Amino acid sequence: MTITELARALRSGETSATDLVRRALNRINELNPTLNAFALIDEEGAYRSARIADEERAAGIDRGPLHGVPVAVKDLIDMEGLPTTCGSATSFGATATEDAEVVRRLRDCGAVIVGKTTLHEFAYGATGDRSVDGPSRNPRDPSRMSGGSSGGSAVAVAAGMVPLAVGTDTAGSVRVPAALCGVVGLKPAYDAISTKGVYPLAPSLDHVGLFATTVEDVRIGYEALAEQPTYGEHGGKVGWIAPRNIAVTDPRVEALVRDLLDRSDLVVEQAPPFPRGHAWFDVLSTLQSSEAFRVHEHHLDVDRELIDAEVLARLEAGGRVTPEAYAEAERAREGLRVSVDGLLQDFDILALPTVPIVAPHLGARSIDVAGNDLEVRSALLSLTSPWNLTGMPAISVPAGHLDGLPVAIQLLVAPGNEHTMFAAARALYPAR
Amino acid sequence: MTITELARALRSGETSATDLVRRALNRINELNPTLNAFALIDEEGAYRSARIADEERAAGIDRGPLHGVPVAVKDLIDMEGLPTTCGSATSFGATATEDAEVVRRLRDCGAVIVGKTTLHEFAYGATGDRSVDGPSRNPRDPSRMSGGSSGGSAVAVAAGMVPLAVGTDTAGSVRVPAALCGVVGLKPAYDAISTKGVYPLAPSLDHVGLFATTVEDVRIGYEALAEQPTYGEHGGKVGWIAPRNIAVTDPRVEALVRDLLDRSDLVVEQAPPFPRGHAWFDVLSTLQSSEAFRVHEHHLDVDRELIDAEVLARLEAGGRVTPEAYAEAERAREGLRVSVDGLLQDFDILALPTVPIVAPHLGARSIDVAGNDLEVRSALLSLTSPWNLTGMPAISVPAGHLDGLPVAIQLLVAPGNEHTMFAAARALYPAR
Repeated sequence: MTITELARALRSGETSATDLVRRALNRINELNPTLNAFALIDEEGAYRSARIADEERAAGIDRGPLHGVPVAVKDLIDMEGLPTTCGSATSFGATATEDAEVVRRLRDCGAVIVGKTTLHEFAYGATGDRSVDGPSRNPRDPSRMSGGSSGGSAVAVAAGMVPLAVGTDTAGSVRVPAALCGVVGLKPAYDAISTKGVYPLAPSLDHVGLFATTVEDVRIGYEALAEQPTYGEHGGKVGWIAPRNIAVTDPRVEALVRDLLDRSDLVVEQAPPFPRGHAWFDVLSTLQSSEAFRVHEHHLDVDRELIDAEVLARLEAGGRVTPEAYAEAERAREGLRVSVDGLLQDFDILALPTVPIVAPHLGARSIDVAGNDLEVRSALLSLTSPWNLTGMPAISVPAGHLDGLPVAIQLLVAPGNEHTMFAAARALYPAR
Repeated sequence: MTITELARALRSGETSATDLVRRALNRINELNPTLNAFALIDEEGAYRSARIADEERAAGIDRGPLHGVPVAVKDLIDMEGLPTTCGSATSFGATATEDAEVVRRLRDCGAVIVGKTTLHEFAYGATGDRSVDGPSRNPRDPSRMSGGSSGGSAVAVAAGMVPLAVGTDTAGSVRVPAALCGVVGLKPAYDAISTKGVYPLAPSLDHVGLFATTVEDVRIGYEALAEQPTYGEHGGKVGWIAPRNIAVTDPRVEALVRDLLDRSDLVVEQAPPFPRGHAWFDVLSTLQSSEAFRVHEHHLDVDRELIDAEVLARLEAGGRVTPEAYAEAERAREGLRVSVDGLLQDFDILALPTVPIVAPHLGARSIDVAGNDLEVRSALLSLTSPWNLTGMPAISVPAGHLDGLPVAIQLLVAPGNEHTMFAAARALYPAR
């Protein structure tokens, strides 16, 4: 059921928050041992919150559409009294002393948090398969990646455990797993949802985002958490960014996504070619790895043997970024912002595939795409990471299937035009 | 607290089963996200069982020492209505329709099952680090192996989550993680605890066993589950089996364990050298791999891509064991039984280290021991697996520490002499 349907059933008395928690926990208990969506299931806390929501409802208090709805949060977001693992054994024995701002806001909205979701260690990987909890697995095919780093949140929604989940996105960590698992994923504008109490990866690129099964549910969640109204009509002009100008893309993915746009009632035109297309992931990587090194440097002295070897190598590479290289990447980032601002003079919305491939097998590190041998992580992030550099709102919605696996389209707008983005996304993906 | 202490506190009204569940779940929520002891935490089922136990207590019903005590069971043991993962993604979406016999027996004793513990995939590995849930980690040092395959059960007890846990042992899968984590582990006599409803690995070698922090707690659990009285005096003669006659052993481990025996009031003599010492792990491997292939063969056609590569290779090797090789291993096994029967004419108890090394780092596959380059899995199982061939009772108790990591001693007796084994184990490890 969608959040709208749940909200109606809660208000009519057909169901209760306690009943919804019980159903969510049954589903989680059934599937989590093999899918690893959750690192921690907080049954007691969930039932407590649900009881309060039901009591408030009985007393005539209505906290809005999330009141009594089960949600999940990625396990690098603090919840008072529970561990925050960041997907890493380095967190062994630590417990958060305070709720993160987004958790406080969820509680203010009456949402019922049922647990904390699995992530790629330190949120530093798009494959979702290097975590203290083991890989999170794609419910469409458990031998495939969920994507990462917010893989657990995507899986929790895709497997029907909860209707809404919170994640974070530094280079694509919400949109990539949303695309691979066939759900809707939103990276809002930079800082639209507070990162206070969220363990950072690369502070200038980190965004808090959302997963749900419908565009409307993501919009409802966003409106509640960002406290920003977003409803509006579409009718904007869409600029198509040919993905091959940014990264090697499976031509079947490109054709499928473009075809979806062309069959819609949106006005679509080809956007002009993008400057330095293939270089953007490298620019992001320079900034991200240097910032991530500063965030996690203390582990390298204290407990490096607890860190996954691949993640450790990535962290150590960040320590070798020179100040000159960082400054050069910052200049390139500024150039990208100017180019995109220019495009947004001509188009209300920019569109391209979210990910240039379908979900690879777990553990895969290279993949053949139309005769090119690609490194899986950079392929997964190639079409999402530029929009972490710009900090603009971006949403990923399901566009269809290839080989039985989900393919997704990504829509971008200028901050403040979220209503245009949601309206176009609804037009492309009207319902489940 | 030990089971004896909990039983007293429950009967005096100082605590309740519900209170014990709450404390266990708090501890699990705090540590499980990084230690991975549990694949599934059944909060709702645990509170339900605890409530029943408390109501029975109030009504004057006393089901014995496990009544109201939180316990954990390895996740290849069926619990009605919950998935049985066997540590494998191949179990995706399946749910058990009936309780295993040992679960039924636990419930009859009033025990409160709080969840199902992580295991090496299919219970087919002693390293405990290849599981759908990620590695279970050693609470003494989370960068080290818990050992396997019942690693989750050992960790649950060692980390103070539950006082008693059930595991299985086909070549050492209870005793090895007990030794590496510093708790007591029991492999009872073959078939002393029913394997009905337990997913097999190699049926002629599989044993259901127990973990606890004290010898007395393991004895209490065994008496309840095997329905066999076991209390008695010690005073038997101990035969020391020099471990180096069976497998390469860290000389510091050998010295530490032998010294513990010599400082005890047990009568210890050197047992005569063991025939074909170094060959026993190979004999066991032949039987185990051939039987495991027959058990899991169906996966190789249906969903092999869901199986960990190392476990898959092990399974496939089992398909190449010829009937002649199997028969030859069976003859060797019979010879071992005759040799051990002979030793048990002269000695009441046989003693040797449980594991010839301390807990290796997670992921390690080779290890240097006194200048020898050993394969980790066979080293871990080298001193435990012969006693799966004989099917005799075997207990592992902590013997001390090397480099801050636990070392353990193993005691063996003839079936029916469990009381002698428990009494000697208590003498060597009087309390925590």
